[in-house]
Amino acid sequence: MHSTKVSIFGAGGTGGEIAELLVERGYEEVSLIDVQRDMAEGKALDIWQSGALVGSDTQVLGGSDAALATGADVVVITAGIGRKPGLNREDLIATNAQVMQQISRSIAAFAPNATVIVLTNPADILARIVFEETGFPAHRVMAQGGILDSARLSHQISRLAGVSHKQVQSMVLGGHGDHMVPIRQLAAVNGVPALHLLSEEAWADAVERTRFGGGEIMEKFKTHGAAVTPAYAVVAMIDALHSPFSQIWPISVRSGGAYGLPEDVFIGLPVRISRAGIEGVLELPIDADEREALQRSAASMQATYETWKHTGARD
Amino acid sequence: MHSTKVSIFGAGGTGGEIAELLVERGYEEVSLIDVQRDMAEGKALDIWQSGALVGSDTQVLGGSDAALATGADVVVITAGIGRKPGLNREDLIATNAQVMQQISRSIAAFAPNATVIVLTNPADILARIVFEETGFPAHRVMAQGGILDSARLSHQISRLAGVSHKQVQSMVLGGHGDHMVPIRQLAAVNGVPALHLLSEEAWADAVERTRFGGGEIMEKFKTHGAAVTPAYAVVAMIDALHSPFSQIWPISVRSGGAYGLPEDVFIGLPVRISRAGIEGVLELPIDADEREALQRSAASMQATYETWKHTGARD
Amino acid sequence: MHSTKVSIFGAGGTGGEIAELLVERGYEEVSLIDVQRDMAEGKALDIWQSGALVGSDTQVLGGSDAALATGADVVVITAGIGRKPGLNREDLIATNAQVMQQISRSIAAFAPNATVIVLTNPADILARIVFEETGFPAHRVMAQGGILDSARLSHQISRLAGVSHKQVQSMVLGGHGDHMVPIRQLAAVNGVPALHLLSEEAWADAVERTRFGGGEIMEKFKTHGAAVTPAYAVVAMIDALHSPFSQIWPISVRSGGAYGLPEDVFIGLPVRISRAGIEGVLELPIDADEREALQRSAASMQATYETWKHTGARD
Amino acid sequence: MHSTKVSIFGAGGTGGEIAELLVERGYEEVSLIDVQRDMAEGKALDIWQSGALVGSDTQVLGGSDAALATGADVVVITAGIGRKPGLNREDLIATNAQVMQQISRSIAAFAPNATVIVLTNPADILARIVFEETGFPAHRVMAQGGILDSARLSHQISRLAGVSHKQVQSMVLGGHGDHMVPIRQLAAVNGVPALHLLSEEAWADAVERTRFGGGEIMEKFKTHGAAVTPAYAVVAMIDALHSPFSQIWPISVRSGGAYGLPEDVFIGLPVRISRAGIEGVLELPIDADEREALQRSAASMQATYETWKHTGARD
Repeated sequence: MHSTKVSIFGAGGTGGEIAELLVERGYEEVSLIDVQRDMAEGKALDIWQSGALVGSDTQVLGGSDAALATGADVVVITAGIGRKPGLNREDLIATNAQVMQQISRSIAAFAPNATVIVLTNPADILARIVFEETGFPAHRVMAQGGILDSARLSHQISRLAGVSHKQVQSMVLGGHGDHMVPIRQLAAVNGVPALHLLSEEAWADAVERTRFGGGEIMEKFKTHGAAVTPAYAVVAMIDALHSPFSQIWPISVRSGGAYGLPEDVFIGLPVRISRAGIEGVLELPIDADEREALQRSAASMQATYETWKHTGARD
Repeated sequence: MHSTKVSIFGAGGTGGEIAELLVERGYEEVSLIDVQRDMAEGKALDIWQSGALVGSDTQVLGGSDAALATGADVVVITAGIGRKPGLNREDLIATNAQVMQQISRSIAAFAPNATVIVLTNPADILARIVFEETGFPAHRVMAQGGILDSARLSHQISRLAGVSHKQVQSMVLGGHGDHMVPIRQLAAVNGVPALHLLSEEAWADAVERTRFGGGEIMEKFKTHGAAVTPAYAVVAMIDALHSPFSQIWPISVRSGGAYGLPEDVFIGLPVRISRAGIEGVLELPIDADEREALQRSAASMQATYETWKHTGARD
Repeated sequence: MHSTKVSIFGAGGTGGEIAELLVERGYEEVSLIDVQRDMAEGKALDIWQSGALVGSDTQVLGGSDAALATGADVVVITAGIGRKPGLNREDLIATNAQVMQQISRSIAAFAPNATVIVLTNPADILARIVFEETGFPAHRVMAQGGILDSARLSHQISRLAGVSHKQVQSMVLGGHGDHMVPIRQLAAVNGVPALHLLSEEAWADAVERTRFGGGEIMEKFKTHGAAVTPAYAVVAMIDALHSPFSQIWPISVRSGGAYGLPEDVFIGLPVRISRAGIEGVLELPIDADEREALQRSAASMQATYETWKHTGARD
Repeated sequence: MHSTKVSIFGAGGTGGEIAELLVERGYEEVSLIDVQRDMAEGKALDIWQSGALVGSDTQVLGGSDAALATGADVVVITAGIGRKPGLNREDLIATNAQVMQQISRSIAAFAPNATVIVLTNPADILARIVFEETGFPAHRVMAQGGILDSARLSHQISRLAGVSHKQVQSMVLGGHGDHMVPIRQLAAVNGVPALHLLSEEAWADAVERTRFGGGEIMEKFKTHGAAVTPAYAVVAMIDALHSPFSQIWPISVRSGGAYGLPEDVFIGLPVRISRAGIEGVLELPIDADEREALQRSAASMQATYETWKHTGARD
């Protein structure tokens, strides 16, 4: 039994999935917090009851009161609006940034020792805002970076190489979609470089499918994006945040100048993570083109952040 | 690795949850079939990718073509319309009965050896229609009977007695909601009768909360019902259908005259189930009032069936 | 990840098995302590390395120094000599009582807040000695009571009724072997009384096989007894000792006068157990003959204890 | 539930551990076969009973009759004598070769479609003898090659780099002990080369500890070697032999000329393995010194085999 409490702001598809997975893992308490109180309460009831079949004693509470996050060790933020037709990116950011600011104040008040994981899009930008707004140390604020994209890339490697999901490792850094930076040398099957098992064409195919994987699913769903694999990706981070020994994952953290990136940018980088939080960024000898792609990705994020700062940030 | 294929007609909330849980359990193949092809495809992609984080090699396919059920060992039916304001019960049944008839023909064609589990409401009535339409033997057709209600009752016992979910057993027979028949003597905590741990008042409270548990959640969600615990309940049935040794569960099956009920009625009864299908109904010495409640529940179902038969059935 | 430390005095067959199972469950630290230092060190190394294949980060240390138990939450005692040809019962008790006294002093020194589980035979007598010697409150000292015998009885019920191991519950109270007291009404299959599924003859057969189950295995091994199922039984107790909600198990605890037994006797009784320790004995309405058997069992233990007290106890 | 049967010749420490782990994984049937019938029967009883606590329905049978292997999908051979003081290597091989020949005939008779895994030492030599004696195709005969040594190396990497066991990969080829060939470039932590996380000195230290890891444990136990990690290593192979998709592991197989090695030698090589058996050897671009070490290892095995062939083989 984990003696931990995880609070999730945003009880939509991914929020609910995360709660459900935490019950399976036996975390001690999970709370789902959403402005749509009925939905949060309903999901919490449905998920809590499942414990009777799972054989898990996780307590699951739901509601709209931020005090439900009291004493949480980990807070996940999935609240906010999603990408939708007719909404421009600036407005999306402005709206979600306000949501982050409000939730940040709640977290600072009710869970001052929590580690925060931001999922709401654009997660890298919003994590930076949460970092600023909570005043938490950088090792306790992060966004879901590349674990989701890495899982999708691993899935493609698995299919194209005909190998089991159990054995594939991969590392996608940078931002998402166009800005994602898969690291060739770090894709492996039980440690064996994936490029010994895949042709260059197959590798390029795997990368392309990963790049457009999220968009492809969103296109099918129309009103929302994927929920299941994103939830597993967050739960991998939550598990790592309870690990006594370090784990290595691509996570969006404050760069601190690693890889020559602007210090303040939050971007997907290979980090050591454990119950001590983000222990540090690993500086790996990546290819020149990968390094450049990382810098382009960071520059784009920096620009987005500044645009928001000058126009969208509350005063 | 289970060498089995499960096909799910209906890729809504519960259908998707079931698929997700089957990936966790390592079933060999899962297909999600829905008239909303994009949704079925999108969910299948999202769930399949999760295997890279779960470490599972279940293949997950989605689409609208019933041929995706080819060779399935188990077919789950969640398709159809749900209860909603302004829709009367007769119309709900008439519509869903047609859906069942169509899917039954697909199953008979593509998965003639499958065991079928009906979830669509009203599940007991619809299972009877699927039984008639597929022509499958009675031991291969069932509806989700009391496992869901039993899970909810167990959850209430757990809370009220302060005991772990891991140890609670309970048995709810009959129909759902008003027609549910919880069996006092069979509620237990690691074999110890629950009524040694709960007062009569607490027991009555647990039963009431269970009776209205589904409705309470639906009221909160408004447009749909619970999805997570129902999915676990179905997966308990699917697991039992792959068990070499018998399991005992409350499941809605053709009564065959057990408990003095009309032979043809499908209703929640305690059965032995294994990979051989429904092995038989257990005739337990239940209380007189429980027996009466069971008969009332069956009579109500029989009446509903006959109303449909005379007015709503296709000719 | 459990934030707990379990120390095991006695690195023989069962001690090693317990350590191995705790690694699978992800406990934080396990130490194996034995006068045969090399054996304890060797087993600890072998078991710790397995974490690389299990995917578990439990630290496993071994040695002969009682300081390895420093800060343990749970201490298991399997040390001492076993029953063997030519050794009379009094000498066995005298020897093992001395071992218990010595280990009790170590526990009091190094793990003053631990809960102690005694496995060494005769476990009920020795638990009483550990209780006296450590001065720990009664809710933190217990012997493996009936979980092992219950597991064996459940196994027999499973075989004779043809039902899955996953669903059988049973409750064996009192002492072991001849003194074991299986409770008819508490044997169940998913809550359904086992006697609805078994004939009286089959039930009697299951009880007989259980009564001689341990002896049968010891006879085959000659120099030692069963190790695997006993280890699982202890681990069920350790897990219960980390459960936030109560579990009900047959465990040997100080009777405190329950069932009209002598207050000071340690004997297998149905208890509520959780991370708060033994919460209390459940007084269940058992049959008159079962109550008598329990009293005979307790009387025999009391006599054994007094014999030891007058002749074997150190002065 | 796996629909599979695994038979284990040799019910010693490792044989029993393997059986126990297969119960946890829910394999359908396990049989333990040993000339010491009582021991095999006793262990089978003890392990079978554990299913009541594990919640597993694996049937476990034990005895001395080779017919217990009837229809097995996988056969594991751990029977034979171990290394002990005063026994020279030639005599060990001669004795164990005879045991292999006898068991091979049993397997060919009772489990003609089985895949065979040899653990008895020297496993590489004895697998070759089993291959010849059963007449089975090469993709169905193998020895435990480097999975055990890889697990030990991964454990050392985990400790020295302070990273979780969950994320370490490594690949040890060749023979055991002095003949083991760890591949530097394939050691990784979630795909990140281990040498980015470890100094050269730490790597050398990890390799040295791995090389002497088995010997260190045996020295402590004196009469026997490690059992737990070896059992997990075998179970990883058994699981791979039931995987629908390929897994990559270091396993001792007939080289078939890979890496320029003598065709007939069985030696630890990186292979693709699945439920189709050994699918092929992966030719990876290893370092020149690693290639040489592999050749020395193979040459030593070839010499040992020939010595046995000319002097020790039955005529």
